[in-house]
Amino acid sequence: MYRILESINEPADVKQLNMEELNALAGEIRSFLIETVSRTGGHLASNLGVVELTLALFKCLDMPRDGIVWDVGHQTYVHKLLTGRREQFATLRQLGGMSGFPKSSESVFDVFNTGHSSTSISAAFGMTRASELAGENARTVAVIGDGALGGGMAFEALNAAGTYQKNFIVILNDNEMSIAKNVGGMSRYLTRIRTRPLYFRMKSRLERGFRRIPVVGEPVVLALKKIKDAFRYLITSSTVFEDLGFTYLGPIDGHDLPFLCDVLEQAMQIQAPVLIHIKTKKGKGYKFAEEAPTAFHGIGAFQVETGEADAGCESYSSVFGHTLFSLACANEKICAVTAAMPDGTGLKAFAEHFPKRFFDVGIAEQHAITFAAGLSKSGLKPVVAIYSSFLQRAYDQILHDVCLQNIDLLLCVDRSGIVGEDGETHQGIYDLAYLSQMPHMAVLAPAHFAELSDMLRYALTEHTGPIAIRYPRGSMQATYRTKTTFSFQKAEWVHRGEMVCLIAAGHMLSTALEVYELLQSRGLSASVINLRTIRPLDEAAMLEAAQSHRLLVTLEDGIRRGGVGEQILAAVKDCQTQVLIKAHENGIVPHGRRELLYAACGLDAKTITQDITDQLHWEKKDE
Amino acid sequence: MYRILESINEPADVKQLNMEELNALAGEIRSFLIETVSRTGGHLASNLGVVELTLALFKCLDMPRDGIVWDVGHQTYVHKLLTGRREQFATLRQLGGMSGFPKSSESVFDVFNTGHSSTSISAAFGMTRASELAGENARTVAVIGDGALGGGMAFEALNAAGTYQKNFIVILNDNEMSIAKNVGGMSRYLTRIRTRPLYFRMKSRLERGFRRIPVVGEPVVLALKKIKDAFRYLITSSTVFEDLGFTYLGPIDGHDLPFLCDVLEQAMQIQAPVLIHIKTKKGKGYKFAEEAPTAFHGIGAFQVETGEADAGCESYSSVFGHTLFSLACANEKICAVTAAMPDGTGLKAFAEHFPKRFFDVGIAEQHAITFAAGLSKSGLKPVVAIYSSFLQRAYDQILHDVCLQNIDLLLCVDRSGIVGEDGETHQGIYDLAYLSQMPHMAVLAPAHFAELSDMLRYALTEHTGPIAIRYPRGSMQATYRTKTTFSFQKAEWVHRGEMVCLIAAGHMLSTALEVYELLQSRGLSASVINLRTIRPLDEAAMLEAAQSHRLLVTLEDGIRRGGVGEQILAAVKDCQTQVLIKAHENGIVPHGRRELLYAACGLDAKTITQDITDQLHWEKKDE
Repeated sequence: MYRILESINEPADVKQLNMEELNALAGEIRSFLIETVSRTGGHLASNLGVVELTLALFKCLDMPRDGIVWDVGHQTYVHKLLTGRREQFATLRQLGGMSGFPKSSESVFDVFNTGHSSTSISAAFGMTRASELAGENARTVAVIGDGALGGGMAFEALNAAGTYQKNFIVILNDNEMSIAKNVGGMSRYLTRIRTRPLYFRMKSRLERGFRRIPVVGEPVVLALKKIKDAFRYLITSSTVFEDLGFTYLGPIDGHDLPFLCDVLEQAMQIQAPVLIHIKTKKGKGYKFAEEAPTAFHGIGAFQVETGEADAGCESYSSVFGHTLFSLACANEKICAVTAAMPDGTGLKAFAEHFPKRFFDVGIAEQHAITFAAGLSKSGLKPVVAIYSSFLQRAYDQILHDVCLQNIDLLLCVDRSGIVGEDGETHQGIYDLAYLSQMPHMAVLAPAHFAELSDMLRYALTEHTGPIAIRYPRGSMQATYRTKTTFSFQKAEWVHRGEMVCLIAAGHMLSTALEVYELLQSRGLSASVINLRTIRPLDEAAMLEAAQSHRLLVTLEDGIRRGGVGEQILAAVKDCQTQVLIKAHENGIVPHGRRELLYAACGLDAKTITQDITDQLHWEKKDE
Repeated sequence: MYRILESINEPADVKQLNMEELNALAGEIRSFLIETVSRTGGHLASNLGVVELTLALFKCLDMPRDGIVWDVGHQTYVHKLLTGRREQFATLRQLGGMSGFPKSSESVFDVFNTGHSSTSISAAFGMTRASELAGENARTVAVIGDGALGGGMAFEALNAAGTYQKNFIVILNDNEMSIAKNVGGMSRYLTRIRTRPLYFRMKSRLERGFRRIPVVGEPVVLALKKIKDAFRYLITSSTVFEDLGFTYLGPIDGHDLPFLCDVLEQAMQIQAPVLIHIKTKKGKGYKFAEEAPTAFHGIGAFQVETGEADAGCESYSSVFGHTLFSLACANEKICAVTAAMPDGTGLKAFAEHFPKRFFDVGIAEQHAITFAAGLSKSGLKPVVAIYSSFLQRAYDQILHDVCLQNIDLLLCVDRSGIVGEDGETHQGIYDLAYLSQMPHMAVLAPAHFAELSDMLRYALTEHTGPIAIRYPRGSMQATYRTKTTFSFQKAEWVHRGEMVCLIAAGHMLSTALEVYELLQSRGLSASVINLRTIRPLDEAAMLEAAQSHRLLVTLEDGIRRGGVGEQILAAVKDCQTQVLIKAHENGIVPHGRRELLYAACGLDAKTITQDITDQLHWEKKDE
């Protein structure tokens, strides 16, 4: 079934193939991906879109001497298939298995790890300059999507590379999508130049004498930089990329393999930075994915024949979405800002009903925050919903533009804590630590759905100043139902016992309740506190807990260094009680199923219970 | 002497003036600024450059209904002069006095606080959208320099605003400088369009019928958007800004006041985002500043007649510069990256001697870090020197691109801790807290010059993985001279006493030594530890200190939450000793002389000594 694919163990094998074989291989790869991902789940649509591009790069480059930096990195399945990892697809995104992103630790062909958007040009340009300095002149090509191009960092890199005097190739993989539909002036601009197929041909007329290569259907003449500069203003308007110093080649059909190879070969001859603009179709070759690329962006297991995936159930994101919607019905000052994640963050209904109050700024977290600060300064109540790990991109804006000015702004930090299969670059484990450092910033963490609603209501109707609510991916929640209503800076005593006091931040309450049961079964009396407000801490409750228990155990789904546990420890430092901090000791949490990851990180009920009994015994011995 | 200026108490007063009076006022403002700043120090060159621009904005806008967001914000002296703060210039940048940056707390005319680069367009656009939603349609104009335009965030904002359908004005204040000379493709592009004076006139020929306004010298015809779109490709190549959706007006002489007013008036009529490109001269009107704008960017007191300032003395930056230089002579793999601060960070000599290994990426901290990560991945030893508070912009890149990949990279964090007169946006007090959270990241802090050299040598010859060295502005240093050589993760016992152990991070050692003397004089025996390695902590030394002293006192010039003190507290939590953490309790440290700020923050020797004796008495009473 995968006759050619099974013969490919390294890039050199791809270089041996002729065009016919490569085209056949493309078909095999698509079948393989659809079949595999339908079982394991993963990023399908973006990978189906880059089959020909990947093959063309493998055909033209000389790897591992040369390399490819894949922006964001979830479109590297084809790359992985062709670099000896075919067998590992069964373990895709599983704990201990193959990552869904490039990882230097997996393969020498993964030259730079990616995960967050818009980093590829900077990294590839750095590698190119280093190789030049070493006299090796290896190529490192950056492949970046049109969505990621909207991230400011990509512009910084284009700006920096634009004055380079040697060859450096950036491929703009333009599928008119980030995860959702793209927005902004650049996106509209690309659409305009996408529909300008004459670019090549107009130039070609003036560039007779350059070699013509017969390619399926039409001859291609590639512009050489010097000539082009001379004629640029006469022939046609220059592109943004040319204005920045790049030689622009495009737009090119990204599924036309021979043409792609040809353009690449010639681009490699140009002694200047080159941007190759290719048009691809997300989900290419699989009807259901072509029709609904957003649904097939990151997907769980699905039926190949019908394209149907398991229906999503209620999640923190959906609870956020409908609570915000109802609050926004009552208060027209409430507006929502997101960075290319209208669906993922649960803002779909809001966007449809309140289009004037909804701002999707694309992949531009920095702008999202300061823009929202501006909205607030002029009297609106902005809510910014961004995934925890992506919010890191706006650290300075949160601190400098929001917190220092004490601006009324609600940050809804989705996908916080362990997110699972996307792995280390996407785990949202830093937000508690860094948000807690910032002046004026209040931080809340709900233990279950209803608490999230309560907190949203509080934040948008009572609070002044910057405030963040952080909640996990999906539906992870306590079986517990709140007995007391949410009150700012007030922790909730869920159980009152003696000996041990478990203090849980947010969704870790469910784990704390499990630990509580396990301790009970061992005859140990415990209290359980649902912290609710992470900052400012309910110091009275912490002191009460410290004074009435031998051991405080703090539980958080976040990095230990600078996190909630250390904050509590500092609050009770003058008491005699012992404090056991349960948090992520290691800032690098790999990919895998969430339940397995919590256990691997020692944050499951069983391990925590054991740690507690160990500590109590050790203390006893010590006395 | 300042006849007109003295009659201006609010923007409405400026609106009353005719063009002749305004031009005279411009002259008075320049004299006032030169005279005042020569006494107080401050940002001179950038303010001399925007005198006419500020007057034009005040003349055309209707403030405070309308507003101006000044990017970076150090060019707001003229703005302050015209908004009732003339008398406060004597207290410029002093503790309790007037800030050198816009502050909403100072004036209703300071509509959005700035300090870091590239935030203005996002903020102004947010304010514009909010006002539109409220049906008020107040204008908020963003003024951004060509240097700040290179920051990715500015691009994100242009991208977002490009599709707006109503009036929104961005003024590009192009002086061909950030603090240093600008770099990159965008800068080169601006130079090209700066020297293209025909832009206006070429269009004007096709736009007959639109109103002509006689202005000094020549008639002006402003392009109206619709017509322009139709003819754009025929007439001339469009600009990058037009490609993003902006109507582009320029280039315009930014010192031609009537012309500026005219263009502004007309820009306000265009129902689309408008970018007005003005050319200004940094230091305009003061010979010495025009000739050396970098020197007069931020300057101390100077002689008006000669332009001479006090000579700079040895500083951490200069020690960094010459140590790195000598290390780079011995190892050609060492390269340096900075973000528009070649002089400020002390890299001037390096840049001159090793131009191939020196990379100034402009105001683009995000790119700087990931680019350096790429350099490292391909075998170089990159050193990235950035000021602490600006490094915040690259939080995600340090975490995601450097630390998760455990990349060999040296971060030299200059201007850490209190920087003084620039105030709250520039204080470098967060680095210790956020760098300490990141996986694999080692953090060092020298207590004096020689230690910085030792640490640089260690980091570049022995260490693997990411490592940061943070040091303060200027020459703040311990009188102490190191007795032991630097050894990684090894604290230095400077004094061994009993009772109290003072543990100092970096330059706080000098304060610890003062406290030590004061305690001695009160008959209290103390130990002093120079921590040197902040992370990973020398736990053995911390435990030894905890076990042999009644009180540990930690001293750091950084935010308390998540900082060094809490880290030490966590390390000794199972000991019986008390811990007193001396750090910045408040994340907002105002502007003023550094010595005064330390006292204001309770981080001076006297206050700390008092806190220690209080704690000891309190403990005694408690026993």
